[in-house]
Amino acid sequence: MIAELISVGTELLLGNIVNTNAAYLAQECAQLGLSCYYQSVVGDNMPRLRAALLAALERSQVVILTGGLGPTTDDLTKETAADALQMPLEMDRHSMERIEAYFAGIGASMTENNRKQALVPHGAIVLDNDNGTAPGLILEKEEKRVILLPGPPNELRPMFEKSVRPYLAAICPGTLYTRTVKICGMGESKVAARIQDLIDRQTNPTVAPYAKSGEVHLRVTARAQDEKEGARLVKPLVRELKERFGMHVYTTDPEVTLERAVVDLLLANRLTVSTVESCTGGMLSSRLINVPGVSEVFKSGFITYSNKAKRKIVGVKKSLLQKYGAVSLQVAEEMAAKACSLTKSDVSVSVTGIAGPDGGTKEKPVGLVYIGCCVCKKTTVKEYHFSGDRAKIRELSVAAALTLMRQCILEYYSQMTFGKQ
Amino acid sequence: MIAELISVGTELLLGNIVNTNAAYLAQECAQLGLSCYYQSVVGDNMPRLRAALLAALERSQVVILTGGLGPTTDDLTKETAADALQMPLEMDRHSMERIEAYFAGIGASMTENNRKQALVPHGAIVLDNDNGTAPGLILEKEEKRVILLPGPPNELRPMFEKSVRPYLAAICPGTLYTRTVKICGMGESKVAARIQDLIDRQTNPTVAPYAKSGEVHLRVTARAQDEKEGARLVKPLVRELKERFGMHVYTTDPEVTLERAVVDLLLANRLTVSTVESCTGGMLSSRLINVPGVSEVFKSGFITYSNKAKRKIVGVKKSLLQKYGAVSLQVAEEMAAKACSLTKSDVSVSVTGIAGPDGGTKEKPVGLVYIGCCVCKKTTVKEYHFSGDRAKIRELSVAAALTLMRQCILEYYSQMTFGKQ
Repeated sequence: MIAELISVGTELLLGNIVNTNAAYLAQECAQLGLSCYYQSVVGDNMPRLRAALLAALERSQVVILTGGLGPTTDDLTKETAADALQMPLEMDRHSMERIEAYFAGIGASMTENNRKQALVPHGAIVLDNDNGTAPGLILEKEEKRVILLPGPPNELRPMFEKSVRPYLAAICPGTLYTRTVKICGMGESKVAARIQDLIDRQTNPTVAPYAKSGEVHLRVTARAQDEKEGARLVKPLVRELKERFGMHVYTTDPEVTLERAVVDLLLANRLTVSTVESCTGGMLSSRLINVPGVSEVFKSGFITYSNKAKRKIVGVKKSLLQKYGAVSLQVAEEMAAKACSLTKSDVSVSVTGIAGPDGGTKEKPVGLVYIGCCVCKKTTVKEYHFSGDRAKIRELSVAAALTLMRQCILEYYSQMTFGKQ
Repeated sequence: MIAELISVGTELLLGNIVNTNAAYLAQECAQLGLSCYYQSVVGDNMPRLRAALLAALERSQVVILTGGLGPTTDDLTKETAADALQMPLEMDRHSMERIEAYFAGIGASMTENNRKQALVPHGAIVLDNDNGTAPGLILEKEEKRVILLPGPPNELRPMFEKSVRPYLAAICPGTLYTRTVKICGMGESKVAARIQDLIDRQTNPTVAPYAKSGEVHLRVTARAQDEKEGARLVKPLVRELKERFGMHVYTTDPEVTLERAVVDLLLANRLTVSTVESCTGGMLSSRLINVPGVSEVFKSGFITYSNKAKRKIVGVKKSLLQKYGAVSLQVAEEMAAKACSLTKSDVSVSVTGIAGPDGGTKEKPVGLVYIGCCVCKKTTVKEYHFSGDRAKIRELSVAAALTLMRQCILEYYSQMTFGKQ
């Protein structure tokens, strides 16, 4: 079955936003076994959108449109699709009630233009929007399916998962079965070089590396009749990859992020954790705290951006700061150790570095970062040299801190096990 | 003049990569005054690519193709364009020498398939690639221009800047001039309703709202002969928008983010700041610390996710936590006040809320967030009801905290001014 994506929005044509929805939906369609040969982007313009939709319907069975479902007069995706498919719009009482409830829930008054969002083409399947006001729609007409989804990714993705994926799975024979082997603490080229032989001889399943910030994901994909056959096909290759990358593999579960893997490790070992951050300024704790259930393990976090804060808040000695500087192995070590004792946590992690654009010197250039991790009173510090802008250096520091935490905890427990043997 | 983008690559159709090139080129084209009505993505497939190129040439004067210029047999963008425009391929000695020099430079041996990259359509303008082996190409045929660029962004962008932008600037009369009026503390529908009359009667310039997380950006765009005329055209509309939204407008500078506006306000008033975060867990301080130069104003940040941390770290009274609960107006107020006194900061901001997915009750549902802001000992607390998943609720809380900080500082100083009168 052939699917096609049409993204609607002048902001895409002007390059104001990057089309992440297209990548997300393309990936989802591929996994469902739908073939995608075309994607297109058109503006909020009825004749051009209509032409694009009709062209897509000529060559594809499923057309997914995103964007243009908002409350303003600019937004006309629904109106255009209803007109092209000759399915007149009518008020949907259920959607109207949900929109009213949405505004009541956030304690805001509904404006008149939101009523437009409850209009749906006659005979459409209405998809509830749990994160906004625009419902999604599935229009079925003579073996063709047109699916309309809201543009904001935080509305589109949950709606796709809840309603569209099951709908499409039911009408698509065959599947693309995917497993992701997630690797931390090793660069992309090194990972790629280690699997070149597997890539060269691959047919089904295939493996492809994707660089994430501070991580590399190896995506193993098999074309199969069903989930079960897919699982059988990918299994040997996933096992091979796990053997090759050993401890660097932190999960093969698509839902598990690096911070989740770390929190799970803390939970499993009943360890509590605290953070002390300088250049990352709360980005590390924020990633940990995005994991539901983190309250079981997270004690406190400190953002000690200035030297004074490092002294006053966590008690780094003035002499140490003067002798080695705030960005040094010694200060990173002290920050981690003090955080543990101050909060009575089992684990702590410290980050101190030069994120730029200013503040770099010849001896301590922008991108120099020290990360310390203390596990049950044993502190490890590592030196890193990152490149990129301020945001990138901070992001890479956070990934490195999570990687180091994982490594230190694993090593601590493997040594304990050794000791017992 | 009308331009159109065609991105070539199966990895885009499979959603393995996000099409950042399209956003980059779209933005560049808009700035050059080229109108873009369509973007499309096709795979490495000759008949489909040929059809897409011919369709684009029907409706646009400039067609920019990206990707598919690599050395492998998969890559056939150049071959397809040469065939569609009937410009036979021939060896380009200059490109061949550059490719050989490139491999010598990185100390690698050239493989036979790289020779293919030195083949260019007869009569093409060859664009040197300073960061890879595939040269770019401009093909001119009867008032139409087809531009071929390599897919990797680090090759495409420098090539565009060095060669394509000057080429297009020479053939494009006029420009698109844009200003963005950035609004905080007001929802998208409310903003849209307030400018409906402007949208309804707009011709040149135009205004369009874009919802960001917790903000709305109004993009004012004018078609003009040059930058100067553009500035003159947008000025009255920008002034009108600033009047309508008053204090909600935090900037009209495209480079200024909300956190930057807040840091600038702190710097201008020589105020220091500290943060105490519960559900946002460092996300607020992290956004502030992403602003270069923040070290002048940022004192300390505390992540007090647990009740114990709220008590031990910032000294929230146990009785208060027991009586009102951690997510309450009273605790938010105490967190903010204590943070100021503890760190001797002029300003502090506190966030406590229920980000979900668990932890909600009927009285205190998921999405309930209290934010406190203390400015020179005067504390303001506001109650918010956000909807969305955990990440979304936390993101909206951070935007609301920045908005509240800005509001409290502005109000404090406007009252001081009143007092003096």
